[in-house]
Amino acid sequence: MPHPQTYVAPTRELQFILHEWLDAATQLQAHSSHTGIQRTDIDTLIAELGRFAENEVGPLNAIGDSDGCSFHDGKVTTPAGFREAYASWCTQGFPGLTAAKEDGGRALPNVMTNLVIELVGSANHSWLMYASISRGAYECIRANGSPQQRALYLPKLASGEWTGSMCMSETQAGTDVGLLQTSASPQADGSYRLTGLKRMATVSEHDFGENIVHLVLARIEGAPPGSRGISLFIVPKFLPDAEHRPGARNAAWCEGLEDKMGIRGTPTCWLRFDGATGFLLGEANKGLQAMFVMMNIARLATGMQGVNQSERGYQVAVDHARHRLQGRSASGNTVPGREADPLIAHADVRRMLFTQKAWLEAGRAFGYWLALQVDRAQAHPDAAARHDADELVALLTPVFKAFSSDNGYACTTLAQQIMGGAGYLGERGVDQFIRDARVAQIYEGANGIQGQDLLGRKVLADGGNRLARFQQRVAASLARIEPGSSLRPFADSVLELGERIGALVPRIARRAAANPDQIGASGQSFLRVLGLQVYGWLWTEMALVALPHAADSPFHAAKLATARFYFAYLFPEAEHHLRVADIEADVVMTADESLF
Amino acid sequence: MPHPQTYVAPTRELQFILHEWLDAATQLQAHSSHTGIQRTDIDTLIAELGRFAENEVGPLNAIGDSDGCSFHDGKVTTPAGFREAYASWCTQGFPGLTAAKEDGGRALPNVMTNLVIELVGSANHSWLMYASISRGAYECIRANGSPQQRALYLPKLASGEWTGSMCMSETQAGTDVGLLQTSASPQADGSYRLTGLKRMATVSEHDFGENIVHLVLARIEGAPPGSRGISLFIVPKFLPDAEHRPGARNAAWCEGLEDKMGIRGTPTCWLRFDGATGFLLGEANKGLQAMFVMMNIARLATGMQGVNQSERGYQVAVDHARHRLQGRSASGNTVPGREADPLIAHADVRRMLFTQKAWLEAGRAFGYWLALQVDRAQAHPDAAARHDADELVALLTPVFKAFSSDNGYACTTLAQQIMGGAGYLGERGVDQFIRDARVAQIYEGANGIQGQDLLGRKVLADGGNRLARFQQRVAASLARIEPGSSLRPFADSVLELGERIGALVPRIARRAAANPDQIGASGQSFLRVLGLQVYGWLWTEMALVALPHAADSPFHAAKLATARFYFAYLFPEAEHHLRVADIEADVVMTADESLF
Repeated sequence: MPHPQTYVAPTRELQFILHEWLDAATQLQAHSSHTGIQRTDIDTLIAELGRFAENEVGPLNAIGDSDGCSFHDGKVTTPAGFREAYASWCTQGFPGLTAAKEDGGRALPNVMTNLVIELVGSANHSWLMYASISRGAYECIRANGSPQQRALYLPKLASGEWTGSMCMSETQAGTDVGLLQTSASPQADGSYRLTGLKRMATVSEHDFGENIVHLVLARIEGAPPGSRGISLFIVPKFLPDAEHRPGARNAAWCEGLEDKMGIRGTPTCWLRFDGATGFLLGEANKGLQAMFVMMNIARLATGMQGVNQSERGYQVAVDHARHRLQGRSASGNTVPGREADPLIAHADVRRMLFTQKAWLEAGRAFGYWLALQVDRAQAHPDAAARHDADELVALLTPVFKAFSSDNGYACTTLAQQIMGGAGYLGERGVDQFIRDARVAQIYEGANGIQGQDLLGRKVLADGGNRLARFQQRVAASLARIEPGSSLRPFADSVLELGERIGALVPRIARRAAANPDQIGASGQSFLRVLGLQVYGWLWTEMALVALPHAADSPFHAAKLATARFYFAYLFPEAEHHLRVADIEADVVMTADESLF
Repeated sequence: MPHPQTYVAPTRELQFILHEWLDAATQLQAHSSHTGIQRTDIDTLIAELGRFAENEVGPLNAIGDSDGCSFHDGKVTTPAGFREAYASWCTQGFPGLTAAKEDGGRALPNVMTNLVIELVGSANHSWLMYASISRGAYECIRANGSPQQRALYLPKLASGEWTGSMCMSETQAGTDVGLLQTSASPQADGSYRLTGLKRMATVSEHDFGENIVHLVLARIEGAPPGSRGISLFIVPKFLPDAEHRPGARNAAWCEGLEDKMGIRGTPTCWLRFDGATGFLLGEANKGLQAMFVMMNIARLATGMQGVNQSERGYQVAVDHARHRLQGRSASGNTVPGREADPLIAHADVRRMLFTQKAWLEAGRAFGYWLALQVDRAQAHPDAAARHDADELVALLTPVFKAFSSDNGYACTTLAQQIMGGAGYLGERGVDQFIRDARVAQIYEGANGIQGQDLLGRKVLADGGNRLARFQQRVAASLARIEPGSSLRPFADSVLELGERIGALVPRIARRAAANPDQIGASGQSFLRVLGLQVYGWLWTEMALVALPHAADSPFHAAKLATARFYFAYLFPEAEHHLRVADIEADVVMTADESLF
């Protein structure tokens, strides 16, 4: 039976982040492409998306989980209401929110997509996947497509008439996509015939829209083995005719759905390409690079999903903690005349609520700040600023993806813990939040891979320069805090941790030079330490914004209280992982495999 | 569709713990009641229970999850095979394993029950619950019952003909059982009529055996409110006749089953007492104390369940990591001629496997050591030894319950993380292990309650004396390690942490005297730090046993490698929680509730 769930869009929080802290409108006005954007445009979009999230997809979240998608005779039926919500989504022009005007889009900045991911994804993670993959496909074709491909596919994706799908994994090729076996045979007309079986293919068959544009990784016959021989193809479910209408059915057949722990409203397909017609997207054998446009978008979206699930869990947990009377407060009766106090009166429950709030709100800040960096990288008039932003995004994408999704899982688990037995019974859907949150740690590059990407490719590969520039930026930002300020201890903690991380890098680099396994052995802890520092920086920034208003405004006072909690309870986790990141790899590598 | 799962009883590990480390047979021989016990008796029981676990209930684990229990017309049908397995369980004499000879039991020591909980519970957590609650009911009636009650109920529970059930929670009374409303009205014949609705009543209706003995908490009419007015009652489903046969149906009616995230093969019932006939067990208004016999057993069993789920996850993860080829090993091709190396060649995967192994094996050591302390407390000829053991059990029960179940959840999550997408698809049932493991953090006193019990009632309440005696015991044990030994650094780390914990206690005590919320604010971190120290002590003990054999025996070499990993990767978590436990409660308490 579906559980009653209510999602309330956190409008005030978004205004705090986007207006009070980031002043996103002013930042975006400095970009050539968004000179006219105003705060009211952002507020309007928050309101529009908030309504869609609260009223249209939010109420479908539980049924998406309980009913899931069904497969019969090659067809996938989505959960009741999903299809109608998609039609409404298209009518309201949301698919083309950030698409180019020439493609029929609204050409809004990238940061607006973050609002989609947060609001729609918090309301219904499963439903978001359809919209999210389509947007990734749009960006991927826009970045890599020929003029003809762009003219054909982009308007269809921007209008939502057609949807996108991402087909990478195969049974033997998951994390290691270089092992894929799907082959592409060149045809006389310049097209290819694709043959192979894809698994974990997200939203690759369903009942929305009139066509599905599969982006498929395959190996052209004779191409090198491994990841150097992979190309990317557009394989439409229906081959477009001369008028850009869906024509002949292509030989891309759904053979079934994966049965998943969560996001059960998203169809995750077995998709067989049986000599399907495909069109090379970008250069031959450079398919992974081309697909990475989509992958980077997906990783940022996944980081945001950690925030989403935290928000869902937090809303439910706070409400429960306010209303559930259980046990006497240690410091005295807070509700005279009643036999018990609300859970929120208990210190340990507050610890859990504060933990959720601290992870959640720093994660949100991180997500919007990073999304603005993507805008800056794309559209800032100054090339140096674009390069700087690009480097920040490269460095911090794995941190956001893994740190936020790990914290998101922890937060949903805490929501259930606060609810106790009622949570285990799935009341208010809290067990669904855990099961949905879990996928974000696994897909789009498992979190262990993110740690290695961060440490190996983003930090050690350039001798720590990107990281050092980020630390300079943090230091410059924190230099605004006066020596006598009550926030100075926060700032000093962040800077001190930055120095300790900086001192760690050359030690890890030396060890990694002698033993490449060091990157795998240290990666996860290194990522966790950097994440804790980033969140420390973000909490200090937020506290700085809140401080002048805290005396009069409970909302701002809460920011200060949560910052204080963060530095007291969560930030010291760095002590653990600084030690672990500094341990020689032989601790994990010397034991023979047979010892496990 | 049920997932193929295979459980293999970890016989070699059990021999290491019970024979090589604890020499349990020799310890037990010193007890008046078990002078004749031999190693071979333990080995025989491991083999018997291992066979039952592997062959009889293990294969039912997946179907218990997929099919669950069903409720129709007041009747509960258990998953296919569960009932037959129970019949076999009884035929083999397992229900009375530790029951007294006079009740028809085998009178084996308590530590043997731990083998049941581990082996049967690892194979099938849901199925274990039936056996586990029955054993709790047996012990509770044995400790609190009148001679007539003992004569009537104990042989039936020891033979398994009748099963037990525990009825505590009500909708408004979960953690705070003092809020219960079920009433008991005294009758002229000395019995009571019970009226009320119990929830979360585990195995309170099913299709095993011929009668169910409900142990029910209720308030006698006119008794004080809160926990001081609670009494415990025996309420049989069928009222026994003069020949001790099930007679008239009692008015205890199952009204439905809770729909749970996990342990779906266990019926968790709504049970309505509609003027049901009950018999006071123990003294009036002392029901909570009487029930605590059962609760303490349940808490120790729950700690063991953390071990069980870790074991299941570990078995699956190791197998997957050995066979799944994905990615190149950083330090070079380990499988010549193949395109990829097994996951187990990757440092980050080894980190996760070692983490599982380190939590799992220390948890197992903790569980059997504690179970032996229960035997010592019950049956050692020396009163001082009995008292000492009793104090150890009191101090460490909350640590085992919470620390082991928290680690167990982390381990099952790691198993899924190692399996990546395949894990999220539930291959080999790994998502079930997570959902089953989760309950252990919630039931039998949520883990936050355990932290407060430890810090408030077990440590601060006696001025830290119990804790100090435990530290003396640890110090005495570690004094066996010579100054030049390779294990000395482990021992020193454990002792140093013990000193830091010892120094922390008076600081927390001072703060708690001024602000009782300090116990809630510090409890969780205090428990975590003590748990890390206990596991450090256990790993040092195990390493000490393994050291002389490590050169020739891969099994023992693995113990040393895992001890080294534990101290390098996991033990430093204490740095985090030592800081948190030392933080003043006002960090969580000053903020107004409206700030959440």
